[in-house]
Amino acid sequence: MEFLVRAENRLPPETPEEERSRLKKGERARADELRAAGNLKRLWRVPGRNATIGLYECTDATELHDVLSSLPMFPWMDITVEVVATHPQEQ
Amino acid sequence: MEFLVRAENRLPPETPEEERSRLKKGERARADELRAAGNLKRLWRVPGRNATIGLYECTDATELHDVLSSLPMFPWMDITVEVVATHPQEQ
Amino acid sequence: MEFLVRAENRLPPETPEEERSRLKKGERARADELRAAGNLKRLWRVPGRNATIGLYECTDATELHDVLSSLPMFPWMDITVEVVATHPQEQ
Amino acid sequence: MEFLVRAENRLPPETPEEERSRLKKGERARADELRAAGNLKRLWRVPGRNATIGLYECTDATELHDVLSSLPMFPWMDITVEVVATHPQEQ
Amino acid sequence: MEFLVRAENRLPPETPEEERSRLKKGERARADELRAAGNLKRLWRVPGRNATIGLYECTDATELHDVLSSLPMFPWMDITVEVVATHPQEQ
Amino acid sequence: MEFLVRAENRLPPETPEEERSRLKKGERARADELRAAGNLKRLWRVPGRNATIGLYECTDATELHDVLSSLPMFPWMDITVEVVATHPQEQ
Amino acid sequence: MEFLVRAENRLPPETPEEERSRLKKGERARADELRAAGNLKRLWRVPGRNATIGLYECTDATELHDVLSSLPMFPWMDITVEVVATHPQEQ
Amino acid sequence: MEFLVRAENRLPPETPEEERSRLKKGERARADELRAAGNLKRLWRVPGRNATIGLYECTDATELHDVLSSLPMFPWMDITVEVVATHPQEQ
Amino acid sequence: MEFLVRAENRLPPETPEEERSRLKKGERARADELRAAGNLKRLWRVPGRNATIGLYECTDATELHDVLSSLPMFPWMDITVEVVATHPQEQ
Amino acid sequence: MEFLVRAENRLPPETPEEERSRLKKGERARADELRAAGNLKRLWRVPGRNATIGLYECTDATELHDVLSSLPMFPWMDITVEVVATHPQEQ
Repeated sequence: MEFLVRAENRLPPETPEEERSRLKKGERARADELRAAGNLKRLWRVPGRNATIGLYECTDATELHDVLSSLPMFPWMDITVEVVATHPQEQ
Repeated sequence: MEFLVRAENRLPPETPEEERSRLKKGERARADELRAAGNLKRLWRVPGRNATIGLYECTDATELHDVLSSLPMFPWMDITVEVVATHPQEQ
Repeated sequence: MEFLVRAENRLPPETPEEERSRLKKGERARADELRAAGNLKRLWRVPGRNATIGLYECTDATELHDVLSSLPMFPWMDITVEVVATHPQEQ
Repeated sequence: MEFLVRAENRLPPETPEEERSRLKKGERARADELRAAGNLKRLWRVPGRNATIGLYECTDATELHDVLSSLPMFPWMDITVEVVATHPQEQ
Repeated sequence: MEFLVRAENRLPPETPEEERSRLKKGERARADELRAAGNLKRLWRVPGRNATIGLYECTDATELHDVLSSLPMFPWMDITVEVVATHPQEQ
Repeated sequence: MEFLVRAENRLPPETPEEERSRLKKGERARADELRAAGNLKRLWRVPGRNATIGLYECTDATELHDVLSSLPMFPWMDITVEVVATHPQEQ
Repeated sequence: MEFLVRAENRLPPETPEEERSRLKKGERARADELRAAGNLKRLWRVPGRNATIGLYECTDATELHDVLSSLPMFPWMDITVEVVATHPQEQ
Repeated sequence: MEFLVRAENRLPPETPEEERSRLKKGERARADELRAAGNLKRLWRVPGRNATIGLYECTDATELHDVLSSLPMFPWMDITVEVVATHPQEQ
Repeated sequence: MEFLVRAENRLPPETPEEERSRLKKGERARADELRAAGNLKRLWRVPGRNATIGLYECTDATELHDVLSSLPMFPWMDITVEVVATHPQEQ
Repeated sequence: MEFLVRAENRLPPETPEEERSRLKKGERARADELRAAGNLKRLWRVPGRNATIGLYECTDATELHDVLSSLPMFPWMDITVEVVATHPQEQ
């Protein structure tokens, strides 16, 4: 089952570069794992914003929450989830 | 997997009583089937509105759409779906 | 009488782990009491957010406020309450 | 238990005067009954709009819906309900 | 002339208990004076929020502003005012 | 007491020219009376819209509603009223 | 370049079945052409709504408009376009 | 003085082709005149919508309203105007 | 050319009294100059808020921005500008 | 391909003058480079706000994001991007 997930990153601009860099590396590593596991199918950048739109595949919303909250940036992210259904044209 | 579903019924007030009554009967019959099938777990009335909030259980969003679009009032309903996850306190 | 209660937890990400953990334990303990008392009937997680949707049963809005403000996280929660009526199909 | 009820009347401007007048008379008569029954405690006009704000007293949201849907104008009204609690200063 | 006044209290959760308590006592004392003066006719609690809805009576909006800004919590309150007219049914 | 009044005119574009012209003439005549009576102090056009912003002076919101509902276009107007207070700098 | 395109279909529920069916067939045929041309990469159903979310690939917004306005349902569709950028993790 | 003008065209999809074509031709002719007069400096299409964004130059808002209301489609257009100032970097 | 300008003052409640008083005095002095120059024609208080609505007269939006940004409180003000046109009834 | 870009500058008013001045100089220098490169075609000031609207030309949204995130003020800017298509009248 697929979900469109919009994530605005609210990490304050004053965050020390070292902390920011550590978080970003962790974020990328975890995202790679989620790609390998088939949970993260696509990731787009929202132009002009520190924000992304991701296409996730999970068995249900509970697994999706576990996936999203496993990201190191999660405490600073403002996330909205939209569940999408398969369109008959694609079946 | 559970979904909270808000449905505003936009059937025009000018709809002839006979048509309205036929639709309502069909709506109730279909809702009873969905209850029996375990898809419709709770249904609330939004006070003061021709609107409901339902708690649905479906395997995924595709089945949910099939369930909702099988309701006779569907063409007049303005529906918004919110997917909910299991809370750790309830596991 | 039932209420759907959406609660966004605005506890700052910088909160020390000890304080956060103490609040969470207190939150769970109080929620268990509210479950035992029949005030908290269901609790869902909003996927991707530090937020919940709860189904509460209280005699009126005044008791509901007492119930919600008794939660240890209350000072950091942004809560919206929606009152729901019994649907004729469920009577 | 008290509710603040905002009602926008969407009766089309093209409605024949006779029909409009019949509905208004019925509306007033029913409102008088609700006042006598203690359900309608105050009614204000929203200035510049065909809209009202009412303070209702009902045992619960289900009774409130019965009260509101008993008004002859109900099919044309766009109603939003806000539940209010007793403030400690007034106890 | 009557006004419906919604006031969200934005006093930060980190405010020391002593300061909070001092402000609350002053708030109550001032509210009692406004009740005695006939300016504050009703006060409701918005359930689940540190917020109130008040029914005020003032000669005009200028007096209303003086009344509201005389409350000790005023600097932390986010207030919206809605002016209401007398409904013909109540004349 | 002054009010800022925004009025969107929703008269359908299909309205016959004769009807439209009759309403406009009546609107202007009534507005002139309100100017003479001191109720309508300024009237602006919202550029690009069939809408106006007016500065009204009335004893209270009840008189304001009588004034606004006396305009021939009233049944087609979507009006929002904002009450304004005297600023200390202008006293 | 990719675009996320949300399309709400506002075709009135009263549309004769024959017309609706003709439009749907044309819609599907045109969508198949757009898939073959590489413009339409994914199509999801918004559950509970007569609405879709599509992932389109076009050289620019002008081509995207030509693509969308070539759909037979276009005159009844309320479309919002969100442009997305490639995320560094996917380069 | 420059204005950014967003115009949504609400001409109903049921409008006969002949009427639509006549309006479009008139619209184009009037736009050409406004371009020649220096009032219409740029015009963009909002992708996926029957809507435009225009950059207009007028002496003031009153002239802008005259310019916009001279367009044959004006009665069906939902227009919002944003006034922009010269940026110091461009002086 | 006239503008309606809404200004919410976001100066934090924790600002020391001395600083606040210095800013207010400067604000008043500058406002008096703008009144004398004919730029500030009216100023209202939004009741219940640390906010004003002003009616400004400037040659264009660039001058308006210079006027507004010359106010000592400008860095803390959240300002929205609405441009208004002369109404034919007032010409 | 053109984009309309709205940027609200959220640099806190408490920022030391030196830091603010350094950022502004850098901002101007980078903007000049973007102008020279043909990416920044127009820049307007939103009157009354520390905000701009820019007309950018980029090959796609990915280049646009690179352009915007190269601005020294980027970490404090709240940016929204609207993609625009060429209007047939301008082809």
